[in-house]
Amino acid sequence: MRETDVAVLGGLSGITAGISSRRHYPDKKVLLIRKEGTVLVPCGIPYIYGTVGGPENNVIPDGLLENNGIELLKGEAVDVDREKKIITLKDGEKVKYDKLVFATGSSPMVPPIPGIDKENVFPVKKEFDYLSYLMNCMNGVKDIVIIGGGFIGMEFADECRKGRDVNITVVEAMPHCLQMAMDDEFCEDAKAKLEETGVKVLVNEKVESILGDGAVSGVKLASGKELKADMIILGIGAVPNTELAEKAGLELGFRNTIRVDRYMQTYTDPDVYACGDCAEKVSFFDGRPSGVMLASIATSEARIAGANLYSPTHQNCGAISVFSTVINDRAFGVAGVTERFVRQAGTSYIVTEAAAPDTHPGGMPNSTPTKVKLIFTKDTGTLIGGAISGGKPVGEMINVISACIMHKMTADDIVKFQMGTHPALTSSPIVYPIVNAACKAVIPLRGKQVSVH
Amino acid sequence: MRETDVAVLGGLSGITAGISSRRHYPDKKVLLIRKEGTVLVPCGIPYIYGTVGGPENNVIPDGLLENNGIELLKGEAVDVDREKKIITLKDGEKVKYDKLVFATGSSPMVPPIPGIDKENVFPVKKEFDYLSYLMNCMNGVKDIVIIGGGFIGMEFADECRKGRDVNITVVEAMPHCLQMAMDDEFCEDAKAKLEETGVKVLVNEKVESILGDGAVSGVKLASGKELKADMIILGIGAVPNTELAEKAGLELGFRNTIRVDRYMQTYTDPDVYACGDCAEKVSFFDGRPSGVMLASIATSEARIAGANLYSPTHQNCGAISVFSTVINDRAFGVAGVTERFVRQAGTSYIVTEAAAPDTHPGGMPNSTPTKVKLIFTKDTGTLIGGAISGGKPVGEMINVISACIMHKMTADDIVKFQMGTHPALTSSPIVYPIVNAACKAVIPLRGKQVSVH
Repeated sequence: MRETDVAVLGGLSGITAGISSRRHYPDKKVLLIRKEGTVLVPCGIPYIYGTVGGPENNVIPDGLLENNGIELLKGEAVDVDREKKIITLKDGEKVKYDKLVFATGSSPMVPPIPGIDKENVFPVKKEFDYLSYLMNCMNGVKDIVIIGGGFIGMEFADECRKGRDVNITVVEAMPHCLQMAMDDEFCEDAKAKLEETGVKVLVNEKVESILGDGAVSGVKLASGKELKADMIILGIGAVPNTELAEKAGLELGFRNTIRVDRYMQTYTDPDVYACGDCAEKVSFFDGRPSGVMLASIATSEARIAGANLYSPTHQNCGAISVFSTVINDRAFGVAGVTERFVRQAGTSYIVTEAAAPDTHPGGMPNSTPTKVKLIFTKDTGTLIGGAISGGKPVGEMINVISACIMHKMTADDIVKFQMGTHPALTSSPIVYPIVNAACKAVIPLRGKQVSVH
Repeated sequence: MRETDVAVLGGLSGITAGISSRRHYPDKKVLLIRKEGTVLVPCGIPYIYGTVGGPENNVIPDGLLENNGIELLKGEAVDVDREKKIITLKDGEKVKYDKLVFATGSSPMVPPIPGIDKENVFPVKKEFDYLSYLMNCMNGVKDIVIIGGGFIGMEFADECRKGRDVNITVVEAMPHCLQMAMDDEFCEDAKAKLEETGVKVLVNEKVESILGDGAVSGVKLASGKELKADMIILGIGAVPNTELAEKAGLELGFRNTIRVDRYMQTYTDPDVYACGDCAEKVSFFDGRPSGVMLASIATSEARIAGANLYSPTHQNCGAISVFSTVINDRAFGVAGVTERFVRQAGTSYIVTEAAAPDTHPGGMPNSTPTKVKLIFTKDTGTLIGGAISGGKPVGEMINVISACIMHKMTADDIVKFQMGTHPALTSSPIVYPIVNAACKAVIPLRGKQVSVH
């Protein structure tokens, strides 16, 4: 029987958990068991259908495993005997482990809509061959309906239009696309940017049924409207892959995720850890369970899990939730809570905004107007949320905000932030919008009248 | 006699100090007194000669003053009677103030090299007409020698070459260009990038004298070499503009800067503050005087000074020093200390590096290889320095590092950093290089053997 010190089940966060455990426990053997032949960059999947050109260009190289001294076993784990510490694979192979990490990820949610099983209806599975097949099917289609206006839906819409003569409609049940992540005004900006490309975005519209004989021919909306469609892509969320964990007797928690503590250790078994989409998460802000699934959270959890295997020391502070996306060349980033969320939670807050070009002077080439919104608690002045739209630097600007949130910086702290600035790379130091938005918060936080902007 | 509550003397950081004081004390009248007709974006000055196309495209609009209810008085302050609280201008006008802020900036250093006063030798003054004149003079020159390979010298070299048929040589006295700011390997990268454009960079070479009858014809180096030159640009540093402060009896400190405490209040007079290049600075790290002059530090100090005028509350934590630049389309950023500095200071430290493309997969368009170096104290694992080279996102990545330094984050903290990632905007979450460099530091910091990279 094959033996290992650390067995990791899964893909993306499995790689990171493996690297982390090798780094912290270089004497331990680490074996990664996964069913996928190749692991895809999950956030890169929409880009396969446009910018990147195919799934073969969106693969995480296994060299990362070799370079870090991690063994790879391709195969599907079908049973875990926690008593004997033995994993059984589909082909009958058995692996004895000392510590086990579940990093089994998530699968696309398939809603119980009548007709959902028709041909050319595609949930976005993270499987190489499946995504290649989807790419082939996309040749020659005329009308694509994307159900769900979240990040995956919006990014698929923006990418599928590239180089294709095709009508694309995004159908979103809520009043705004991207509503789970962003405040209304950013959602509206993103919608407008996508619509500029010719993509239609319908909000407040629910798909009632999928039409067609065998292959899909259209969708029927709850409003009575019908849309033509010869392909449907589902982007309505994901469910954790926790059947095996459940079978192994691990306690599940919020929305069927594996229940873990701050050390990513399962409640049930001190030798079993979990991380990524399959692991239960709590919010950084209120400690309540959070349904967020992000590659950045998954890898952060994986680093923590790998480090804790033989000595639970490193604590997970909870999900801050940092999103970024690009819609028709405009970048959007969000970190922490939205204004909608704090309003609903009843928190007293201050919200401020600042705008500036992302170069200085604004006349530098490729200058993009950039808008920042920050949310602070009223009592303590602590930064709890931020949103940005602008050009490519938004991807790292939102990380500046994430660092500020993680370390509970206040508006007063951020006013004094020493940001580097350069004409070609950033806004001017006078109007640097993260700092300027903090400046505007300082006075209202003290309960004084604001007279300047 | 004209009266104001707050008088601010100076340009860039004067604007920010004025805005800050208006924001904190909306009932107070603020008057900005400056001799310049227009204020230029200081970091934009090299770009006037290439990318931006002229000084008229590099102006800070006075609308910023009006929008914030700040009065502007153009004129040169020549005397300050602190007893009577009266400023006298060159034209005889007098202004009575209650609180006074010196934001008088700096002027280019002109070294006592024989021949320095010849025609076509240009220190880089921050004056509109002067810089226009320099631009005219640049038409038709064949050989430009830039004395000083710091940021100004390197950026001038990179910009002056654009659209001009001209030979450019940078002469640097130290072993590396940019040596005051960056570690050797980054200096060498920057040098190589600049040399790719055809610019020559001579290091370890000192200019002994400037040759020519009336107008400059060349320079003679200490090594005996001679270089042809019909224009010389000086980029060797700056000296604070503190003659007026000295005349007003304010105590000067390190390198003739105005001595201020953590509140930016002058030692000498509780009603007089100073900020920016004219104000004394201490290092964030060791509290020793620091000669760094940066627009980002100046504006941070200005925000603090403006907020403290009627109630010294906000403390300056000292200069972190965050630089960024672009040389031949490669961006470089540095925050905090360099390895050279900590080695000389005798600090026990850990240095780690990580590299990754700034998109994921790497095959996304405009993907740029990005290199990160982090420096941690060995005892506490605290991040004290970072350097990055890469593409446009470097400008904000270095600000992520600055935020981490400012809040004394440790390698363990940064390992858990929840960065947002997106295929078009950032590195992959698996290899995000700021986090990965921190991961590599964790083990050596615990005194264990590193076996993986």
